[in-house]
Amino acid sequence: MKIDIAFNETATRSYSVYIDELQTLSFDTKVAIITNTTVSSLHLTTLLSRLHVKEYCVITLEDGEKYKNFDSLNTILNGCFEHRLDRKSLLIAFGGGVIGDMTGFAASIFQRGIDFIQIPTTLLAQVDASVGGKTGINNSYGKNLIGTFWQPRAVYCESTFLKTLPPREFSAGVAEIIKMAVTFDKDFFEWLENHDIREDTFLKMAIQKSVETKARVVALDEREGGVRAVLNYGHTFAHIIENETNYETYLHGEAVAIGMVMANALAVKLGFLDEQSANRVKTLLKCYNLPTTYTITSAENFYNAFFLDKKSAHSRITFILPEKIGGFIIKNDISKENVMEILKEYVHA
Amino acid sequence: MKIDIAFNETATRSYSVYIDELQTLSFDTKVAIITNTTVSSLHLTTLLSRLHVKEYCVITLEDGEKYKNFDSLNTILNGCFEHRLDRKSLLIAFGGGVIGDMTGFAASIFQRGIDFIQIPTTLLAQVDASVGGKTGINNSYGKNLIGTFWQPRAVYCESTFLKTLPPREFSAGVAEIIKMAVTFDKDFFEWLENHDIREDTFLKMAIQKSVETKARVVALDEREGGVRAVLNYGHTFAHIIENETNYETYLHGEAVAIGMVMANALAVKLGFLDEQSANRVKTLLKCYNLPTTYTITSAENFYNAFFLDKKSAHSRITFILPEKIGGFIIKNDISKENVMEILKEYVHA
Repeated sequence: MKIDIAFNETATRSYSVYIDELQTLSFDTKVAIITNTTVSSLHLTTLLSRLHVKEYCVITLEDGEKYKNFDSLNTILNGCFEHRLDRKSLLIAFGGGVIGDMTGFAASIFQRGIDFIQIPTTLLAQVDASVGGKTGINNSYGKNLIGTFWQPRAVYCESTFLKTLPPREFSAGVAEIIKMAVTFDKDFFEWLENHDIREDTFLKMAIQKSVETKARVVALDEREGGVRAVLNYGHTFAHIIENETNYETYLHGEAVAIGMVMANALAVKLGFLDEQSANRVKTLLKCYNLPTTYTITSAENFYNAFFLDKKSAHSRITFILPEKIGGFIIKNDISKENVMEILKEYVHA
Repeated sequence: MKIDIAFNETATRSYSVYIDELQTLSFDTKVAIITNTTVSSLHLTTLLSRLHVKEYCVITLEDGEKYKNFDSLNTILNGCFEHRLDRKSLLIAFGGGVIGDMTGFAASIFQRGIDFIQIPTTLLAQVDASVGGKTGINNSYGKNLIGTFWQPRAVYCESTFLKTLPPREFSAGVAEIIKMAVTFDKDFFEWLENHDIREDTFLKMAIQKSVETKARVVALDEREGGVRAVLNYGHTFAHIIENETNYETYLHGEAVAIGMVMANALAVKLGFLDEQSANRVKTLLKCYNLPTTYTITSAENFYNAFFLDKKSAHSRITFILPEKIGGFIIKNDISKENVMEILKEYVHA
């Protein structure tokens, strides 16, 4: 199966996302495979058996969001120089979202930009990170604050690599699938309520649907001037939760699950969403054992952290809120009082 | 005076280079001025007197090519986060090529890309670095090996900032002007032979001519797939010289002067350039006290260093050679023997 990603901005090359189509990969240029220790030990042999290239090297990073930093970026770049990659060389991101984002970033700045392809090995990366060309690293100020927009040459989503995914990681991916459904597609949401996507056939359908939805959104708005921001539903809260917990307590998708519940609470409070719909979302998240609550230590600190988020242009916080299921509203004029009221509900004495 | 820079690739915004047109600069966004200690002490007051913004901060780096590295890049980025710049904020590069390249790079990766403007304070930066959108930093493998293509919103070349330029720095800028003339414009070269551009009126004309020439080249080939490579005449050699001398012995323009003489020797050897023309170039360089020779320690090491240059796609060295004055030839099939013969002439026992 093949889904085409096109862009309105003509200079950006279009590319395709292939689902279960990876037979052999042949390149006549030097290739560097960027992966992590976990993925490498589980799946590198499989990948190498399908790769036909003149010359390749493997750069292996530690596994985890906390390694999504300048040091790892430099490890990738230095590895590329060590192996004498040039402007025609290709990077292959072989891992989850962290590997994908960092590899894309490295590709975009290595000798002012070279090609890369994505072979995402987590559900989250397959349905979310693989489409859209956002690259980046975290720093002490927050998540993905440094990066570029750089589109891959192709994306290969292979279900075989998901077989070894721990249940928590799988569920973290489901959170992003649910996110897509809540904001863009009522029918898909209802379908999700009635199908357990831990089953292979349903999983493949859910991946396809998610990639298609995201591709549609990104095509309209590559650089996030408008509708693409809706993909950040739940993320405004999630980024702060991840930062407060040093990226150690929650997987990204888990933080997004909590973030969606928080955003929904705000949406209910402001009258955009009915309580019953908010509960349906929460129920679906719980079906996949996703967390739906969080203990805020200081509501004031949490609130202030919003202003470090890169979406807060001109010191206004942009909230993406569901407006019934399958619809959304973008608000940047919500009063501090309203937000604080929700945040305080999460402070437990 | 205003020179428009347009691009064939439609998604890249066009912008203008203004020569002696900077009266006041007004912005309604947060601004970070990136400068170095030297420029700051000489000219920051002048700049600030012309700047009208809501809020600004100044990030001051050490002065010198050896600071064009990841650490300085992080100083800029962290300063931007400290001062809570957001996606609508603007960076101003206020300094020479090093400041311009690093500020442009920082702008291109801060929150996945924000605007920047250039106010180059050296002749070299005004005639060369300010046009074309190349950004970058050096690392242990070479010069500008990490970076992006990111166009400024505008460039302001002010002759007032050149008044304090030390003669060596001025001449380094002249080297790039001569480079432009040798490869693209016979008439301009002859004009240079007959006019001392240390004189104000002639200087302004030379800046204009150089910017126009570079703008024309860059417009045809933003990402250096073809003709833009010609701007690297002299640079293939220069990068190695700079690297071998730790960026301490020569200013970039001085290394380019030597590099042009070396490239000319190769061109003469291969029969593309007559000896008399090579001598005219050398004479013009010497008029501005530019160096025209260099002692190579090991011709073999020098040769091998070519392969680390990012222009050496697929391990072939690309040489830009003048083919008579005002013309060029791009060669990537020159034998090692021919190159080594030239290099050995620079090895002194």
